[in-house]
Amino acid sequence: MSLLVFGHKNPDTDSICSAISLTYLKNKLGIEAKACALGKPQKEALFALNYFGVDAPEIIDSASGKDVILVDHNEKIQTIDDIDSANLLEIIDHHKVDITTDVPINIRVMPVGCTCTIVYTLFKENNIEIPKHIAGLLLSAILSDTLLFKSPTTTELDKKACEELEKIANVNKEEYAMEMFKAGTSLDGYSIEEIVNMDFKEFNMGGKNVGIGQVFTLDIDSILSKKDEFLSFINSTNHDILVLAITDIIKEGSYLLYKADDSIISSAFDVNANQGVFASGVVSRKKQLVPNLTEIIK
Amino acid sequence: MSLLVFGHKNPDTDSICSAISLTYLKNKLGIEAKACALGKPQKEALFALNYFGVDAPEIIDSASGKDVILVDHNEKIQTIDDIDSANLLEIIDHHKVDITTDVPINIRVMPVGCTCTIVYTLFKENNIEIPKHIAGLLLSAILSDTLLFKSPTTTELDKKACEELEKIANVNKEEYAMEMFKAGTSLDGYSIEEIVNMDFKEFNMGGKNVGIGQVFTLDIDSILSKKDEFLSFINSTNHDILVLAITDIIKEGSYLLYKADDSIISSAFDVNANQGVFASGVVSRKKQLVPNLTEIIK
Repeated sequence: MSLLVFGHKNPDTDSICSAISLTYLKNKLGIEAKACALGKPQKEALFALNYFGVDAPEIIDSASGKDVILVDHNEKIQTIDDIDSANLLEIIDHHKVDITTDVPINIRVMPVGCTCTIVYTLFKENNIEIPKHIAGLLLSAILSDTLLFKSPTTTELDKKACEELEKIANVNKEEYAMEMFKAGTSLDGYSIEEIVNMDFKEFNMGGKNVGIGQVFTLDIDSILSKKDEFLSFINSTNHDILVLAITDIIKEGSYLLYKADDSIISSAFDVNANQGVFASGVVSRKKQLVPNLTEIIK
Repeated sequence: MSLLVFGHKNPDTDSICSAISLTYLKNKLGIEAKACALGKPQKEALFALNYFGVDAPEIIDSASGKDVILVDHNEKIQTIDDIDSANLLEIIDHHKVDITTDVPINIRVMPVGCTCTIVYTLFKENNIEIPKHIAGLLLSAILSDTLLFKSPTTTELDKKACEELEKIANVNKEEYAMEMFKAGTSLDGYSIEEIVNMDFKEFNMGGKNVGIGQVFTLDIDSILSKKDEFLSFINSTNHDILVLAITDIIKEGSYLLYKADDSIISSAFDVNANQGVFASGVVSRKKQLVPNLTEIIK
């Protein structure tokens, strides 16, 4: 196979799904092509692939001498190392660009939320029917990149695409997105200690040693169901104060587990403190967790 | 008007016609826009505009603070000087690219013979009817850029577009192209001396002072009708030998007027020499006229 279609290094759901979907379209248009990836799909993309019964693309580390189409990226630093010895035919992307070519090639860049929205547009333009499994992958990527339309990068075209894709894929996009986000942010397989220390920083606040850990997950239930084990570990540490923020990016807030007086948490986050309390609007350690706690711990 | 659409500096027929046609499409799609140009249209574009009753676009020298769409070019050196103080929204082009943006924008580059072929594609994709005058401009640009499909940059898509555009524009594309090329390469208004010296170089061949002039035109008749006046001027010069090649890029050859023994011309160009003889295949001074004459004049 001499025409390879692939997304960026450290592939996200869009890079995986746009490569597979565009390859399907090219094949339907009579062009031999193969979807590839520059790394292992992450949990979220694996969930989507599994849900719609699609194999993960082959992982490659060279495109030397091959014809290539880049999806979901255009900059050299993000692509395969030996891109200069490949024959670049086409770029489909939704990012800012930094492209220099020696000859004219096909380039399609649109300021939309997701490359898969462009691929959806290409299906329409070429009047090719979108089958269920491809609709599912396109939908997954758009929901992922736009964070279920919560991201400011979301456009009307992203929403319009999802309206149709949701029907073809035969899923409810809100429910499906939550399932996918949960799978993608699942902390299964990590120990209590690993989760607390996953992204942990220490601060000196008013002479006290304060540790603040933060994890982003939508699989809140599985964390809170182990509340007692988390608290047992948190209380065993040698920090004067420790706050673990379990941030839910869809609800735009954080559930808090802590080693601290309730009064500190209540004052810092304007909540009625109790273990696992939801601090609405608190999503950033740098901009909220740290300054709010610093203000109170004197 | 805050959205300007324009082609490159020293605009050719494609830059003029793609700006006008894309602007028409944007307007039909409900987007206010104005076609502009970075210079005066040349004879060929003026012929097309006049033929289809379209006004020449306004010439601008600043786009500061305006939204802009670039057609038929993408490189900074080819565009308006103050592009950095404009808000670049979109690029439609068929050249190699050298583009860096700070944010995602709309970019449509296709390796086809003419930007107007891409604009034609955009009309189709958006399901907007192409009126006669726009079809005429699109056709003019494609015939111009592809040299009536003789250029190696010509693609099937260029030909397919012209097939339909020729019907809407209600012209015969071969006849129309020849008329347009004649108008575009007309030497009306130039004196005999100016035409001979337009692109003239001198060489020493075997101790003889040899002058070779070349003009590209399809308005051959008007040159050859003044054969005697040309010969009178050519013979009055102080060159030992002088050859004026009147090159017809469609017929891919040159008509020769000369001050030289017939035998030299016959041998150098494999023709039966006479004033105004057609040397088939001879189109390059550097690769054909000079080496062929050097070989014979010893």
